[in-house]
Amino acid sequence: MASQDYKFEGWLGNDPSSADGKMVWGEFEPKPWEETDVDIKISHCGICGSDLHTLRSGWGPTMYPCCVGHEIVGTAVRVGKEVQHIKLGDRVGVGAQSDSCKNKNNDCPECAAGNEQYCSHGGMIGTYNGKYSNGGKSYGGYATYNRTPAHFVIKIPDEIPNALAAPMLCAGATTYVPLKRHGCGPGKRVGIIGLGGLGHFGLLWAKALGAEYTVVIGRSDSKREDAMKLGADKYVATNDEKNWVQENARSVDFLVSSVSSSKMPLREYLSLLRVGGTLIQVGIPEDGPLSVPADALVWSGVNIGGSLIGSPSEIREMFELAAEKQVKPWIEERPMKDANKAIVEMEEGKARYRYVLVNEQ
Amino acid sequence: MASQDYKFEGWLGNDPSSADGKMVWGEFEPKPWEETDVDIKISHCGICGSDLHTLRSGWGPTMYPCCVGHEIVGTAVRVGKEVQHIKLGDRVGVGAQSDSCKNKNNDCPECAAGNEQYCSHGGMIGTYNGKYSNGGKSYGGYATYNRTPAHFVIKIPDEIPNALAAPMLCAGATTYVPLKRHGCGPGKRVGIIGLGGLGHFGLLWAKALGAEYTVVIGRSDSKREDAMKLGADKYVATNDEKNWVQENARSVDFLVSSVSSSKMPLREYLSLLRVGGTLIQVGIPEDGPLSVPADALVWSGVNIGGSLIGSPSEIREMFELAAEKQVKPWIEERPMKDANKAIVEMEEGKARYRYVLVNEQ
Repeated sequence: MASQDYKFEGWLGNDPSSADGKMVWGEFEPKPWEETDVDIKISHCGICGSDLHTLRSGWGPTMYPCCVGHEIVGTAVRVGKEVQHIKLGDRVGVGAQSDSCKNKNNDCPECAAGNEQYCSHGGMIGTYNGKYSNGGKSYGGYATYNRTPAHFVIKIPDEIPNALAAPMLCAGATTYVPLKRHGCGPGKRVGIIGLGGLGHFGLLWAKALGAEYTVVIGRSDSKREDAMKLGADKYVATNDEKNWVQENARSVDFLVSSVSSSKMPLREYLSLLRVGGTLIQVGIPEDGPLSVPADALVWSGVNIGGSLIGSPSEIREMFELAAEKQVKPWIEERPMKDANKAIVEMEEGKARYRYVLVNEQ
Repeated sequence: MASQDYKFEGWLGNDPSSADGKMVWGEFEPKPWEETDVDIKISHCGICGSDLHTLRSGWGPTMYPCCVGHEIVGTAVRVGKEVQHIKLGDRVGVGAQSDSCKNKNNDCPECAAGNEQYCSHGGMIGTYNGKYSNGGKSYGGYATYNRTPAHFVIKIPDEIPNALAAPMLCAGATTYVPLKRHGCGPGKRVGIIGLGGLGHFGLLWAKALGAEYTVVIGRSDSKREDAMKLGADKYVATNDEKNWVQENARSVDFLVSSVSSSKMPLREYLSLLRVGGTLIQVGIPEDGPLSVPADALVWSGVNIGGSLIGSPSEIREMFELAAEKQVKPWIEERPMKDANKAIVEMEEGKARYRYVLVNEQ
């Protein structure tokens, strides 16, 4: 394709109020083309909590205008000459990272080890609100088209429809990767704190990885039925069950926490871990550091760990597992034109459990 | 031996001021004898930070009178009829735990799995300031004799002299066990935060376990020479080296922290960990919970873990390694009669790196 016959248009946030449903549709300039890039005609884009954090400058000042969305799925409509693994017309996806340091001199221990998301050279370029080394800005998937360096463009297996693949690219990877890295598998017991976009994926992955027991820990009873339908062995409503801590003490090897407030009852959560277990925090609260009682760590020999999305090779591995085990996230499709309404409802906690924006064409 | 011809006497703390060097010599009543017990004529007892915490009721109210000391070495002078693994006259030691739930019905997952120190049935009985199931109190090793259930009495290998074995029983186990459990060995890189009784053991174990690199992180330069003599590859003085964080970023797989203040610069320490690394906290600060920046955990995929002493089988394993690799902790022997002076100097940070009380006879 000699030159592009399409326009990059999308929902732009121009200031923090955009998070309140005030994004504006408009054109944007993608990064200057390189022959290692892929252009994607977007069919679907999931709505992630990060989109809201970024629109309202919750994690620090955002480079407005910003088009968010990093659970992007569509069709490769332009493929750089140097790209090997993607062909024109392929169904492809992009997650939350769209570039790394490229490890040109093989001197980045993380990129060399398949840990691109932890790139030591400041090369963790977000799929939106990032700056590429060639000067362009990164723009996300609430849009018609997306341009991303091919290393971060993933082919989607035939078994997985676009709408289901989209939320796997961030929410899915964010929960799959730490469970895998920490050794979730047969014989392991997993607790999910909070059934939301991330939590429901955590539950699905724990089961797909063969965990022997899964429990969802929520505040009220409102999500009990969903948790059981999703395959949980148990549901705990902490507001209603007086003895939930004692009754579930040392019952799981892993806890996946996507809680986005530092005010969570960490001592109580940690007491649910078996000796040697790990609470994996996958959300970054905006309201300050976690308050961790050292004695709770020491007296049970347990850990708190963090985890950031997944590398391209881990995302491919996740898709393979999803295809093999027929992992089916619960999604609700929303028209791209209603993106403002959808992000407000996302923030209100109405998603069951992931909104996926759909381009009509 | 039909009846005992010796008296249990030791240094007793009667109130929190005892931590200021006001322990009083006196007799105490050991636990009622059971045929699973061993009486030890104490030759040596290390001075541990826990002794000070407990004397001053720093971790909660202490059951005064209290005789502290849980790095006890001596000779078995009375051995219960049901005891298999200890014989009269054996050189033996007792660490910080002196009983567990005994797992009578094989229903304690921790005791069954060799995790006695994490006993699920409230059976982690401290070697002092504890209560046995038969009603007796536990008294520590700043004393002439000690009585402890045999499961927690460890035979000391011939290669290790009493004075060196003593501090291994708590400080040694506390640092050996987490390094071992987290996989320290060839190819791994270890940082020690704070060169003290625990830290200097952490360094010795890291080397004995075959770590490829060790670094000691201190505030001032005062311990640089000691760290290098102990075998460290590098010493970092955080007060003096302006760029210590950047220069040592992502340089170690494990950090062993025995820092006993919650005010430590955790964000900076965490930044020294390689992706997937773990900061192991082995001290319990008296001044409140740790303030852990979630983003520091998430953006490097790192962990904070706690660890509590070691099980009897792990202590045996540690002694085997110490014998094989000729691990030699740095100790200063102090006469038992000077225990009050020694604990004050311990609190002042003067130990290089462990005081060991010695009974003259």
